[in-house]
Amino acid sequence: MTSHHTLLTKAIEALRARTFYAAYPEHPAPAIYGETADADGQTKFKTALGKRFTELKQIGESGWAGQEESPYLQQPLNISYPTFTVETLITKSKEAFHEWRKISKEDRAEILIESLERVKKRFFEIAYATMHTTGQGYMMAFQASGPHAADRALEAIAAGYEELSRVPGTALWDKPMGKFNIQLNKEWRAVPKGISVVIGCSTFPTWNSVTGIYGSLITGNTVIVKPHPGAILPIAIFVAELQQVLSEHNFNPNTCQLAVDTFDKMITKELAEHADVKLIDFTGNSVFGSYLEALPGKIVFTEKTGVNSVILDSVEDADKVAANLAFSVNLYSGQMCTAPQNFFIPEGGIKTATGTITFEQFAEKLVANINSLVDNPKAGPFVLGAVQNKKTCERLDEATALPGKVWLKTRTFENPMFKQARVATPVVVEVDASRKDVFSKELFGPIVLLIKTKNTNGSIALAQELAKTHGAISCGAYTTDIVVREKIADEMALAATPVSFNLTGGIYMNQNAAFSDFHVTGGNPSGNASFTNPEYVAKRFTWVGHREPVKA
Amino acid sequence: MTSHHTLLTKAIEALRARTFYAAYPEHPAPAIYGETADADGQTKFKTALGKRFTELKQIGESGWAGQEESPYLQQPLNISYPTFTVETLITKSKEAFHEWRKISKEDRAEILIESLERVKKRFFEIAYATMHTTGQGYMMAFQASGPHAADRALEAIAAGYEELSRVPGTALWDKPMGKFNIQLNKEWRAVPKGISVVIGCSTFPTWNSVTGIYGSLITGNTVIVKPHPGAILPIAIFVAELQQVLSEHNFNPNTCQLAVDTFDKMITKELAEHADVKLIDFTGNSVFGSYLEALPGKIVFTEKTGVNSVILDSVEDADKVAANLAFSVNLYSGQMCTAPQNFFIPEGGIKTATGTITFEQFAEKLVANINSLVDNPKAGPFVLGAVQNKKTCERLDEATALPGKVWLKTRTFENPMFKQARVATPVVVEVDASRKDVFSKELFGPIVLLIKTKNTNGSIALAQELAKTHGAISCGAYTTDIVVREKIADEMALAATPVSFNLTGGIYMNQNAAFSDFHVTGGNPSGNASFTNPEYVAKRFTWVGHREPVKA
Repeated sequence: MTSHHTLLTKAIEALRARTFYAAYPEHPAPAIYGETADADGQTKFKTALGKRFTELKQIGESGWAGQEESPYLQQPLNISYPTFTVETLITKSKEAFHEWRKISKEDRAEILIESLERVKKRFFEIAYATMHTTGQGYMMAFQASGPHAADRALEAIAAGYEELSRVPGTALWDKPMGKFNIQLNKEWRAVPKGISVVIGCSTFPTWNSVTGIYGSLITGNTVIVKPHPGAILPIAIFVAELQQVLSEHNFNPNTCQLAVDTFDKMITKELAEHADVKLIDFTGNSVFGSYLEALPGKIVFTEKTGVNSVILDSVEDADKVAANLAFSVNLYSGQMCTAPQNFFIPEGGIKTATGTITFEQFAEKLVANINSLVDNPKAGPFVLGAVQNKKTCERLDEATALPGKVWLKTRTFENPMFKQARVATPVVVEVDASRKDVFSKELFGPIVLLIKTKNTNGSIALAQELAKTHGAISCGAYTTDIVVREKIADEMALAATPVSFNLTGGIYMNQNAAFSDFHVTGGNPSGNASFTNPEYVAKRFTWVGHREPVKA
Repeated sequence: MTSHHTLLTKAIEALRARTFYAAYPEHPAPAIYGETADADGQTKFKTALGKRFTELKQIGESGWAGQEESPYLQQPLNISYPTFTVETLITKSKEAFHEWRKISKEDRAEILIESLERVKKRFFEIAYATMHTTGQGYMMAFQASGPHAADRALEAIAAGYEELSRVPGTALWDKPMGKFNIQLNKEWRAVPKGISVVIGCSTFPTWNSVTGIYGSLITGNTVIVKPHPGAILPIAIFVAELQQVLSEHNFNPNTCQLAVDTFDKMITKELAEHADVKLIDFTGNSVFGSYLEALPGKIVFTEKTGVNSVILDSVEDADKVAANLAFSVNLYSGQMCTAPQNFFIPEGGIKTATGTITFEQFAEKLVANINSLVDNPKAGPFVLGAVQNKKTCERLDEATALPGKVWLKTRTFENPMFKQARVATPVVVEVDASRKDVFSKELFGPIVLLIKTKNTNGSIALAQELAKTHGAISCGAYTTDIVVREKIADEMALAATPVSFNLTGGIYMNQNAAFSDFHVTGGNPSGNASFTNPEYVAKRFTWVGHREPVKA
C-alpha cells in the first residue's frame, strides 16, 4: 500500500493551526488533473446513464432501483442501484464491524486516504453526476463534490486520528504508599460505537456526507450510507472506491455499504431506529433532524435548517458590498445552508466613506447587482445553476405574496447549454421588523428579506434571537466601527454563529474552508455536526481503560 | 494572586500521560496537614451543628432550611442554609455569566485552583461533615471528599484548560488563487453554554459534584450547585471557599451558587427545566437521570446506576482473591457505584495454582473473609461505616428472600465510637444463572449474588449483556489464562466497562484514580459523565470562528 503518512501529517498540522490547507486542488485545470480529464469524466457520466450501477461489492440485493432526475434536463437519469433489506444491511455491517474495529488507526487511515486518492481520479465524473442530481453549476459541482469534499473527508480522518492518539495505549501507574508502591499496568482502548448510518441530502450529496462516513470509519465503526433518493450517483462513486480499496486489502467491503431507496419506499426511519445502529449523521430539514435527535440510545449529528442574517451597519464602499452579497444570493440559486436570507438595515441608512446611503438606495443597489449577474450570459447561468426541487420554485412564487414591498420578483433566464433547465432568480421583499412570523424561518431558495430596523443594535438583537431560536449557520456583517464590530462578534458568538465581516471581492459568506472554519458550531438549533471539532469524532468511540497489578 | 501555574502544568502532564499523580495528599497525616488539623477540623464541624451556615456570599434568601441527619448518630445535624427561589438563582447566575465568560482561561484557572488550596485547609472539617451525612468511614470520608475530590476538580480544570487551548485564538488564512491570494484574519472564541446546574448525590457529595462544578467554571459557565438534601455541608464548604476567592478578586460570587432545598419541596426539576439552564450534571438513580437526559435543548452529564460484575475464571491464590473481594464488598457497606454485585463462577469451579476449587468452596472463602473483616473491631466498623439511607437496610432484609441459597445474612455490629450508628453487613445469595430477572438490576448496598455459569464464556456473555443493557461502572476479573484475559478485555470493552484484572492486596476494583482512570466511560447506560474524557469538558462550550479580510 502506498504510504499516505505525509498527507495525514500535513492535514493534522493544518487542523491544529487552522491555516489554509488543501490536499485536493479546487481548480479543474487541465494542468492539474490532465488534458482529457474533463472530457473523460463527462463521457463516463454519460455512459452510466440508463444502466445499472455495478461497481459496488455488496451482494444479495433484493432488487434494483433509482429515481434520480436531472434539474438541467428535467429528465430521469435512469440509473439503477442494488437495493437491500435493512436486515441484510445490518447483518453485513455487524460482520464487518468485528473485523474493522480491530484494525489499527494507522492502517485505517491508509485505506481511507487511498480511497480519496482513487476518488480524485473521478472528480470530473462526480462533478457531472452532481450537476445532474443537485442542479449545481459546473464549477461548484466540481469543487464541492470533488476536492472540497475530499478535503473534508481528509479532515475527518485527521481529526479522528488525533483523537485516537490522545490517550496512550499503555502506562505504568506507580503509586507511592509509604513503605511500598502499588504498581498497575494500565491500557486504554478506543472502542467504536458500532454501526453508523449517514443520511445524505439532495443538494450536497458528498460534501455533507463524507465527514460522517470518514469520521465514523477512522474511529472503527462500520457505515451504511443512505443517500437522498434524488442524489445518489456522486456518493455511490465514493462508496464504490472505498469498497474497491477495502477488497484489494482483503478487508470486508461491507465496512461501508450503500443503502439506496426510493421516494415511495424510504428506509431511513427503519435504519435509524434499528437497535444495532448507534451513530446517525443527517443533513436536511429540522423536523426530521429533531425526530432523529430524540431517538433514545443514539449518538446523532445533524445539520438542520437555519436562518442566516446579514447585518449592515457601515461600509467602505456600498457598491462592492452589494456586489458581494448579490453573488452570495445568486450562488446555486440560494440553495446553500450558508446562504444569506435576512438583511437587517437601519432605518437611518448605512454609513459609507462618501456619506450615508438610505435603506432604499441600498435595496436598489442590491437588486441592480443581482440582475446584472443574472443577466450576464457568461456568468449568470453558471453561478445560479438549476433548482433541485420544484417546491423551491413554488416557494419563490409564493414569496411575492409576503407582506411587504416586493423589490424584485423571481423570473427565469436561459441557460445556453440546457434549455430545459429548471431555473429561478432571487426574490427580494421588504418586510417590516415587526413581522417576525415572516422572517423567523428558513425560506429555502434565493429569497432575500430586507428588514428595516431602528438601528444596528436592533439588527444585532434580531439576528441573535433568530440564531438562538431557529438556528443559523452563517452570518454576514458590515461595519467600519470597531466597537460595533466587537458587539456583533460577541452577540453572535453567544448565538454560536460564525460571522464573516466586511467581505468584498472573491470571498463569500456562503463558503466554509476545510481545516479552518467550523461549519455548524453545535451551539444553536441548526445542528451539532460541526466539521470538525473534537466532539464530532470523539463521540464516535469510547475510551475504556483496563488495569492489572504489575507481576512481582 | 499566588500563581498556580506549576500545579496546572503538572496536572495537564499527568492527564496526558495518565500516570500516577496526586496534587493533594490522600493520607490524613499530621506531618502533612499539621498536628492539630484533625482536632481543629472536628471542632469546626461540631461548632457548625445546630446553627445557620453563614459563609455564603449569596444574598436575598427567601428562608433558611436544612434536613441533614447523621447516619452515625441517627440524629439531625440542625444546620440550616439560606434558600432561594429558582428565579433568584437564575437571575443572579445570568448576571454573573456575562462577567465570568469574559475572563481569560488563565485567570479562571488561577481562581479555581486557589479555591482548592483554600479547601485543602478544611479537609478534616469536610471529612467529619462527610461522615455525618453519608455514613462513610473516617478514612474514606477524608480521602474521597477531600484530596481525591480536589484532585478530580483539578483534573477537570486541567482538562478544560487543555480543550480551551486546542484552537488558536487567531490565524492568518492565506489562500493562493493563482494571480493573487485571499487573506483572511480568523479568530476563534470558546463560548460557554450558559448556566450549569450540578445535582449532587447523598453518598459522595463532593467527589461526584466537583468535576461538573469545576468543569463548567473553567469553561466559562456559571454554576448552581443543587446538593442532595441529605448531604449539603461538605459541598457547601467548597462553594463557600469558591465564593470567598471570587469576592477577593472582585468577581461576582454568584458565579457559583448553592441551591439548598428540602425533601418535601425539591427544586431540582424546576431548575433543570428552566430555559436558561443549558448544562446539567447529575449523579443518582437511572429513572431521574433518564428524565434529565430526555430534556430537550440541554447538555446532560449523568452517572446513573450500573450492575457491576466479577468474572472468576482462574486465580493464583484463591484466599488472596477472596480477601480482596470481601474488602470490596464491605467497603462503605457496598454503597459505592463501583462496588461489585454479581459474581460469575463456572460450575466446574475456579482453577488455582494448587488445583481447582469448587463454586461452594469459593463461596465459603468469600463468606469467611467478609465475616472476618466485619468482626475485626480494629477494621470492620471503619471499613463498613454506616448506611446513608434506611431503605438500603430494608433492601438487605428483602435480599434474604431472593430465590436461591442464602450464604450469608445481613446483621449488625457494634461501632465502638457510635453506638447509635445505622449499620448493616453484606448479604450473599446464590442465584441461578437463569434468573436474569433477579440479577439484572442494581441492588444498592452490600448485596452479593453468586451466579453459577456453564463456563467462563458464559460468565463473560452475561457480564457483557448486563453492562450493555443495564450499565456498569466497574468490573473485576480473575484469570491466569492470557487468551481468556484478552477475551474478557475485548468483550467488556465492547460494553464500555473498565476491567480490573487479578487485583489482590491493597488495591480494589471500587477505586478510580484521578488523572488516570476514566470513571464512567460514556459507552453504556450507566451514564456519560466520564471523568475526564475530552467530551466531558468540550461539550461545556462552543467554538465559534469569525473572519475578516486582511486590510490591504
